[in-house]
Amino acid sequence: LTTLRFAKRFENLSGSAVREILKLTQQKDIISFGGGMPSADSFPVDELAKLAADTFADHGEQMLQYGTSEGYQPLREWIAGWLKAKGWNVTVDNILIISGSQQGLDLTSKAFLDPGDQVVIESPSYLSAFQIFNSYQASYLAVPSDDQGMKMDELEKVLVNNNPKLIYSIPTFQNPTGITMTLERRKQLIELANKYDVIIIEDDPYGYLRYSGEPVPSLKALDTEGRVIYLGSFSKIVAPGLRVGFAVADPAILGKMVIGKQATDVHTSNLSQQIVYRYCSQGMLEPHIEKICAMYKAKRDAMLAAMDRHFPKEVTWTRPEGGLFIWCTLPEGLVSAELLKEAVAKKVAFIPGAPFYLGGQGQNMMRLNFSNAEMDLIDEGIKRIGEVLTDAVKNI
Amino acid sequence: LTTLRFAKRFENLSGSAVREILKLTQQKDIISFGGGMPSADSFPVDELAKLAADTFADHGEQMLQYGTSEGYQPLREWIAGWLKAKGWNVTVDNILIISGSQQGLDLTSKAFLDPGDQVVIESPSYLSAFQIFNSYQASYLAVPSDDQGMKMDELEKVLVNNNPKLIYSIPTFQNPTGITMTLERRKQLIELANKYDVIIIEDDPYGYLRYSGEPVPSLKALDTEGRVIYLGSFSKIVAPGLRVGFAVADPAILGKMVIGKQATDVHTSNLSQQIVYRYCSQGMLEPHIEKICAMYKAKRDAMLAAMDRHFPKEVTWTRPEGGLFIWCTLPEGLVSAELLKEAVAKKVAFIPGAPFYLGGQGQNMMRLNFSNAEMDLIDEGIKRIGEVLTDAVKNI
Repeated sequence: LTTLRFAKRFENLSGSAVREILKLTQQKDIISFGGGMPSADSFPVDELAKLAADTFADHGEQMLQYGTSEGYQPLREWIAGWLKAKGWNVTVDNILIISGSQQGLDLTSKAFLDPGDQVVIESPSYLSAFQIFNSYQASYLAVPSDDQGMKMDELEKVLVNNNPKLIYSIPTFQNPTGITMTLERRKQLIELANKYDVIIIEDDPYGYLRYSGEPVPSLKALDTEGRVIYLGSFSKIVAPGLRVGFAVADPAILGKMVIGKQATDVHTSNLSQQIVYRYCSQGMLEPHIEKICAMYKAKRDAMLAAMDRHFPKEVTWTRPEGGLFIWCTLPEGLVSAELLKEAVAKKVAFIPGAPFYLGGQGQNMMRLNFSNAEMDLIDEGIKRIGEVLTDAVKNI
Repeated sequence: LTTLRFAKRFENLSGSAVREILKLTQQKDIISFGGGMPSADSFPVDELAKLAADTFADHGEQMLQYGTSEGYQPLREWIAGWLKAKGWNVTVDNILIISGSQQGLDLTSKAFLDPGDQVVIESPSYLSAFQIFNSYQASYLAVPSDDQGMKMDELEKVLVNNNPKLIYSIPTFQNPTGITMTLERRKQLIELANKYDVIIIEDDPYGYLRYSGEPVPSLKALDTEGRVIYLGSFSKIVAPGLRVGFAVADPAILGKMVIGKQATDVHTSNLSQQIVYRYCSQGMLEPHIEKICAMYKAKRDAMLAAMDRHFPKEVTWTRPEGGLFIWCTLPEGLVSAELLKEAVAKKVAFIPGAPFYLGGQGQNMMRLNFSNAEMDLIDEGIKRIGEVLTDAVKNI
């Protein structure tokens, strides 16, 4: 092979740096607070096994044949009914089944983005979303966040002076910060999107995982002009290995996403869709969410208590009401990517903050995952990180 | 919503016209030779049900967790071994598991195509591939085919005068023609790709379905410089509803496809991968292929015999040695899309030829699928189409 003339999109697209870090953290005996995985012991293995068997018995041939790109109709209908019961103004025509909510980011990008088109992101944000937008050669407008979510005065400054097609937000239990956007900010966000004619992507993989505080309406529920594309996922509330999520959008938008889906994987695995449909329609989802929320609440509380015990007072962190992540801020000058090496030497791991920013910020930030940590190792792991941080703070 | 500023790629991208035709053909009582689906009664439902149950029992938690983008390692290894046993020079590092071979076309396009980049297609070709290349705003160089496949003298003319990045071919039991490229042409194709430095996509969903004649080596087996990207599928030999296929390529190319896959569906359904892995590694695949080949051979023979009986002598057609399709040429001046309406009135359906061409040719062509036809309705359905054709030929 003399030359490989890859597409220009790869000039901004590399394998995720964090994947390399995660490989490190998969060493034996490492206590890992990296990754963003649900806890495998939360998976309802036996129930799903039975539902798989039922699917083969009841609809085996039909399930194994090609399906429609829009998704398994009963699952679409169940999701529409579920959201309607939450007060959303949706019908089955607003629902597209996707192969994990990440595919929704790809299909939305495919529908809207030409090279150079602007995407507003809240800063910091989900690093794999950057990978996807990069693969469409997007340019970025980063809006800073505080403890109430994306800052709306900063957003308006950006919208006045630019012409983005998309605003990407994880408003609830954000990745990486764990912060939830307040209702007032959400209303402002919808108003600004209406005023400046921008589409909002509401990425909501964690919204169902609330452990304390009061629920806040989703952006989609506040959407007055059909300009919110909502991406939901069964990965964190049933199981990620099945690869089932859903998009909720205006039919004009959804139609483009369906064409995009036809041109990628044709449709999502029918077996996965049937299993998720049966799980939901047989009333198992809500009790399961309650169960995993109890499990994750205990882990979150254990991690926060351990951090209170072991982290030096110069370090601060968020206290999320749900989701999977806690976000730590170290004193200026400390570089979390460097400290990770010391932590790994002590057999504990986290994710450094910089990859969650586009502009080189976040060097002194780090993300801790509690959902996939083992309950009885949380204190020990946090204690070891605390030792690394205490040493580092001393040596500033 | 005042405006929807969709991406430019949608200017050339619409829902598949054939999907609309297929909806027609799903009316009750229609004998459909449309579509390109395997026969649902070929699916090994009970075996797959048992393997699904085994998967849950043996690796339930692990299977339901996130997996790697490259695919389930034992399945990658099994495929590498299977291909090696066929004489291919491959290792596990050449194998990427994809969500159906169609995703391979998307990931290959993502790896190589910038807007305006040229793709060589054999004409006619698989219409959904056009949709995918359109979604990357490719431009096309169409090379005509004859009963030996793509014409190599015509291909060289095109390569001398242009600079395409990709050559897209379905060399074995082509869609829509059913034709298999000869060994001589295959060798020439590899030589030309080497000489003009072009990547070849070998799309091979049907290659395992041979009912007569001698096997011809795949392009990938003849590849001397690692420039063939082979796309294989379990859709036609196990079941399409599981959405599992595989790409075989040089690691430098595969690496870009993996990054593309990370940015779309993260990984293929683990449950689907495990089921396919167990099916293959427990020795069920080869006997199953034998079984469905016997089934499809009978259907092909029945359809060809019925065509001999009922079609007017002015109509000609291919006699494929495998695959799913027979391709018919009507006398010049007849328009198969018009005749389809008369056929549907007689409760029988086929796919008109024009969508398989990019330049408006194929008006007098039509594609017949025999794999998904019911054996005892083939003669009756072909008889009805024969009546439509006989009338049409009389009225030229």
